[in-house]
Amino acid sequence: MPPSPAETATLLVCCPDRPGLVAGLAQVLYGHGANILDSDQHTDPVAAKFFQRIRFELGELRTDRATLEGAIREVAERFAMDWRIAWPGRAKRMALFVSRYDHCLYDLLLRHRAGELACEIPLIVSNHAELEPVAKQFDIAFHVFPITRESKARQEELERDLLRERGIDLVVLARYMQVLSGEFVAGWPAQIINIHHSFLPAFIGGKPYHQAYARGVKLIGATAHYATSDLDEGPIIEQDVTRCSHRDSVSDLVRKGRDLEKTVLARAVRWHLDDRVLVYGNKTVVFD
Amino acid sequence: MPPSPAETATLLVCCPDRPGLVAGLAQVLYGHGANILDSDQHTDPVAAKFFQRIRFELGELRTDRATLEGAIREVAERFAMDWRIAWPGRAKRMALFVSRYDHCLYDLLLRHRAGELACEIPLIVSNHAELEPVAKQFDIAFHVFPITRESKARQEELERDLLRERGIDLVVLARYMQVLSGEFVAGWPAQIINIHHSFLPAFIGGKPYHQAYARGVKLIGATAHYATSDLDEGPIIEQDVTRCSHRDSVSDLVRKGRDLEKTVLARAVRWHLDDRVLVYGNKTVVFD
Amino acid sequence: MPPSPAETATLLVCCPDRPGLVAGLAQVLYGHGANILDSDQHTDPVAAKFFQRIRFELGELRTDRATLEGAIREVAERFAMDWRIAWPGRAKRMALFVSRYDHCLYDLLLRHRAGELACEIPLIVSNHAELEPVAKQFDIAFHVFPITRESKARQEELERDLLRERGIDLVVLARYMQVLSGEFVAGWPAQIINIHHSFLPAFIGGKPYHQAYARGVKLIGATAHYATSDLDEGPIIEQDVTRCSHRDSVSDLVRKGRDLEKTVLARAVRWHLDDRVLVYGNKTVVFD
Amino acid sequence: MPPSPAETATLLVCCPDRPGLVAGLAQVLYGHGANILDSDQHTDPVAAKFFQRIRFELGELRTDRATLEGAIREVAERFAMDWRIAWPGRAKRMALFVSRYDHCLYDLLLRHRAGELACEIPLIVSNHAELEPVAKQFDIAFHVFPITRESKARQEELERDLLRERGIDLVVLARYMQVLSGEFVAGWPAQIINIHHSFLPAFIGGKPYHQAYARGVKLIGATAHYATSDLDEGPIIEQDVTRCSHRDSVSDLVRKGRDLEKTVLARAVRWHLDDRVLVYGNKTVVFD
Repeated sequence: MPPSPAETATLLVCCPDRPGLVAGLAQVLYGHGANILDSDQHTDPVAAKFFQRIRFELGELRTDRATLEGAIREVAERFAMDWRIAWPGRAKRMALFVSRYDHCLYDLLLRHRAGELACEIPLIVSNHAELEPVAKQFDIAFHVFPITRESKARQEELERDLLRERGIDLVVLARYMQVLSGEFVAGWPAQIINIHHSFLPAFIGGKPYHQAYARGVKLIGATAHYATSDLDEGPIIEQDVTRCSHRDSVSDLVRKGRDLEKTVLARAVRWHLDDRVLVYGNKTVVFD
Repeated sequence: MPPSPAETATLLVCCPDRPGLVAGLAQVLYGHGANILDSDQHTDPVAAKFFQRIRFELGELRTDRATLEGAIREVAERFAMDWRIAWPGRAKRMALFVSRYDHCLYDLLLRHRAGELACEIPLIVSNHAELEPVAKQFDIAFHVFPITRESKARQEELERDLLRERGIDLVVLARYMQVLSGEFVAGWPAQIINIHHSFLPAFIGGKPYHQAYARGVKLIGATAHYATSDLDEGPIIEQDVTRCSHRDSVSDLVRKGRDLEKTVLARAVRWHLDDRVLVYGNKTVVFD
Repeated sequence: MPPSPAETATLLVCCPDRPGLVAGLAQVLYGHGANILDSDQHTDPVAAKFFQRIRFELGELRTDRATLEGAIREVAERFAMDWRIAWPGRAKRMALFVSRYDHCLYDLLLRHRAGELACEIPLIVSNHAELEPVAKQFDIAFHVFPITRESKARQEELERDLLRERGIDLVVLARYMQVLSGEFVAGWPAQIINIHHSFLPAFIGGKPYHQAYARGVKLIGATAHYATSDLDEGPIIEQDVTRCSHRDSVSDLVRKGRDLEKTVLARAVRWHLDDRVLVYGNKTVVFD
Repeated sequence: MPPSPAETATLLVCCPDRPGLVAGLAQVLYGHGANILDSDQHTDPVAAKFFQRIRFELGELRTDRATLEGAIREVAERFAMDWRIAWPGRAKRMALFVSRYDHCLYDLLLRHRAGELACEIPLIVSNHAELEPVAKQFDIAFHVFPITRESKARQEELERDLLRERGIDLVVLARYMQVLSGEFVAGWPAQIINIHHSFLPAFIGGKPYHQAYARGVKLIGATAHYATSDLDEGPIIEQDVTRCSHRDSVSDLVRKGRDLEKTVLARAVRWHLDDRVLVYGNKTVVFD
C-alpha cells in the first residue's frame, strides 16, 4: 500500500553543482530513518546548477522533525543550497483572484472539491462583484476590491494585508484582469501563478485571441507562469495548444481557449502545490 | 471503386460573397457532365469572402475540357472570381532548395518515392555542394549556386532562369539558409513554401531553438508558410508543436525540432500539391 | 457581419452516390432564395454513399418554410435521400443521465450556461439522489429512478414516458452507470450519446482504467459514441487520448481520464447539437 | 560544459523496495569518486518494487572500473538487486530486421547517421531481397533469410547464429513481417523491439489499419513494445496516435500510420539505447 500523504514530506533543493550532493542528502535522510520514496534530480550543465526533489516517509523516523530539519540545514549550508521542506499536516493556503470570467474559477473549485488540489482555499478576491454567488456555492469568503487608476495602490495594499493576515502562500490569477504592481509581486516571489491566454512568447499583452486570428495561426495556446514585474515574462510552468482553422472565428478561438486555460492553469497549480516546481533565473524545473 | 486521379480535376475559387455562388458552379459542372466528388466551401463573414474547392470526375464529360473551362470562366467573370483549375495529367513541378541540413530533403524525397506527393521533382538547388550525393541517390539534377553578399543578386537571377526554363511551379525551401529577395518571391506568388523552425510568431528570425531554450518554453514548434518579402511573416499553412522540458538542451531541441520540421513541411507541401490551400490577405484556407 | 443563428437552417442528407446531387440541392435552395452559407460534402467510395451538410440563410427567402421543405422533399425522393432539416427557433431538448460522478455533469451545465451548447436542458435523470443539489444550482428538474435488477424494466418505461412527455430529442449519458435496454436505445436512434472511459475498441466493458493500468499503456483515452444495443460498440463520434507513465497509479489515470471524458463528451454533444454528425452503418461522418 | 558521453556510465537497478536503497547506491558511487549527473527513481507501491537509473561521471574516479563494479555488486547482493551497468566506450550493437516496407528502415538509418542513436548497426536481416540497395547506401551488411513454413525453424537458427557471432545486443523489428518463435525471443529477453501499427491493445493481430477503418475510429495509433512469445502482448515502451476522420481511406490510414510507426519506434529504440527502459512483469519503467 502506498504511504499516506499524511506521513510524507517533500524536500526541494537548488545549489551550485558539485560532487557529493546526492550522497550527502541521501545519507542524512537515511541516517535519521526517513525512507526515500521518490527522488528526482536534474543538473543544468549550462548554468552549473543542481536541482533535486526528494519525497520521503516519516513513519520510521528515529528522531523528531526539528532534529531532521537541523541536520538537513547543516548539509544545505555546507553545499550552499537553497532549500525548502514541506511537512505533512500543513496544507498550502491558496487565494484565487478573479474578475468576471468564471471558467477557471469553477474549474479550480471543482478540482479542489474532487481532491485534485492539495490545499486550502480560504478566500477569493475580485475587482468585481459578479462571481460572488460562485464563491457562496463553495462556501468560500469573497472579497471585492474595486480598482480604479486612483485607488489601485491603496486597494493593493489592502489586498496584501488580507493575504498576509490569512496566511496565503499561493496566489492564483484565474483570469484576473488587473496587472499587479511590482511591490505586490515581490511579496510572493514564485508564489503567484498567472494564466496567459496565448502560447508565450507569441501574442504578449492584450487580446491575444484577436492577435492570433489576425495572424492566421493554425494552433492557439495558453501559458501558466509565475508572475514577475515584467508582464507575461515570468518563468513558464506549463503550456499547451489546440488546433484551429480558417473556420474559427475569434469567438471560436475564445471558446477553445477557455478549455486550454483551464487545463493548463490547473496543471501548473497542482504541480506547484505538490512541490514539483523550482524556479531559477527565468526558467522552471518541473519534476514529474 | 474510387475514381482514379487520372480522371479527376480540382477547381479552386475565391470571390466576394453573394448568393448563388454554390448553385452557379454546381450547375455549370453538372450541365457538362462533370460529376462532383468532393466539394468544400467556406465563407469568411469578416472579410465577406467566399472560398470553394470542388473535385470532379471527367469520365462522363459531355463536352471537352476547353468547353468546360470556357463555361467556368463565364461564371467566374459574372461573380468576379479568382479561380484556378488543376486538370489531370499535368503534375506540378517542384524544386527543392536546400543548404546543408538533409533531414527535410530526405523526408520529402522518400515521401515522393512512396507516392505521397503528387508532383515531379526535376531539380534540387543548393548554395552548397554537400547534399549532391543525396540528389544522386534519387536521380535528381543538383544545381549549386554559391551565394555571397556580392553574388547574391546575380545568382538569384540564374536560379530564376533555371526555374522558369524547367517549368517549376512550386519552390520548397527545405531548410534553405538564404533569404530570398523580394523580386524572387514575387515571381512565384503563393508558390514558395518555407519551413520555419519555431511556432510563429514566437521566435521570429535566427536561432529559434536557442531563443526557445533561453525563454524556458515547455513546447517547441515549427511553421510552414508561404514566403513573402517579409521574413517569417507570410501566410501560415501548417504548424505543430512537441513537448520539451528542463531536461532538454539546445541540441535536444534541435533533434526534436527536426521531426517537427519534417512532418509540418511535408503536410504543407502535400496540401498545396493537392490544391487544398487558398491564400487571402495574410491567411490561408486549408480545405481537408 | 455573420448571419444570426436565428435566421439559419441546416440540412443533412445521406443517399446512394450518383451524379447531380450537389447541383440538385443547390438549385432548389437557390431557387427559393435560400443563401448557402456553408456546404460540406463527403462521398464514401467504398460504401458508394453521398453525404452533405448545408447551412443556409433564410433572410431573403422568396417563399415560406413549408414550400421550401416541400421542394426539398421532392428532390430527396428523386434521389432516395435520407434527410433532416433543423429550422431556427426550435432548439433541441437534451436530457442528461447521471449516477454519482459529477464532473461531466458540471462540465456540460457550465458550457451550456456559457452559450457553448445550442439546446435546452429540461431535465436530469439519475438512478441516485446525490447530484440533486447540482441540478438545483442550475435550476433544472431532477428525476430519480432507482434501479434494481427487478425494477429496471419498469423504471426504464417510466423514464421513456418522461422523455417523450418532455419532448427530449437528445439523451446524454454523462457517466451514467446503468446499461440501457435495447428497447430504450431503439426509441432514440442516433440520439443517445455515451462517454466510455477508454480508447475504444481497447478496454471494452468495466473498469477500463484498471485494465489500462494492468496492461501498462502509455496513453489513456476516452470515446464518445452513440449508444446501440451492443455495449461500447456504437458509432464513434469523437476520441482523444492523454499521456500517462509508470508513475501513474490507477487513481492518477482516473483523474487524468476525467479531463478527457469531459472534453470528448462535450465536443460530441456540441457537434450533434450543431447537426454535424451523420450515422451510417457503424460509423459517423462528422463535418467540421 | 556537459561531460562528454565518453566519460559517463549508466547504472540501472530494480529490486524489492526497502529503506536505504538510494543512500546505499549514492554512497558507494560517491566513495569511489563517481559523480552522479542524473538520478531518476521510481517506486511501484503496488508491486513493492524499487527502480533507479543513475548516470555518473568517471573523470574523477579514484579506483578503476572493476573495483567500482565489484563494490556495486556487493550493494546489489545485499539488496537483492537486478542490475546492469553501461560503461562508456562499448556501444550497443543493433540489428535491424525488415521485410519490404522501407520507411522505418530509412528512418532509423538516417537518425543513426545524424547521431541520434548511440549504437553500431553491424547488419540488416530480411526475409526478402528488395531492401538490399538501402543497406548498400548506408554501407551495412545485408543478410537475406527467405522464410517458408518448412524452412522457418532452420532459418531462424541461422539468424540466431549470425546475431550471436556478430555480438548483437538489440534486435529491432522495423516492420518485419514474420513472427519470431518463442526460442528466438527467449535468446534476447527485453532486447527485441517490435513496432505494431495500432494503439495496443486495440486491433491486435493482422491488418490493424483495415480493422481501424471498419470500426470507424477517430484516432489511429502505433505501439513499440518488447517482443515476447505472446504476439502483440509484450511490455509497451511507447505509443502515440494521430487524428483521422471519415475522409480517410484505408490507404490514408496507412500513410498517416507510417509517420507514427517511424517516430514511435525511433523513440523506443533511442530510450532503450540510452538505458532508460526497465522491464518488470508485463510493464516498463521509462525514465525521462
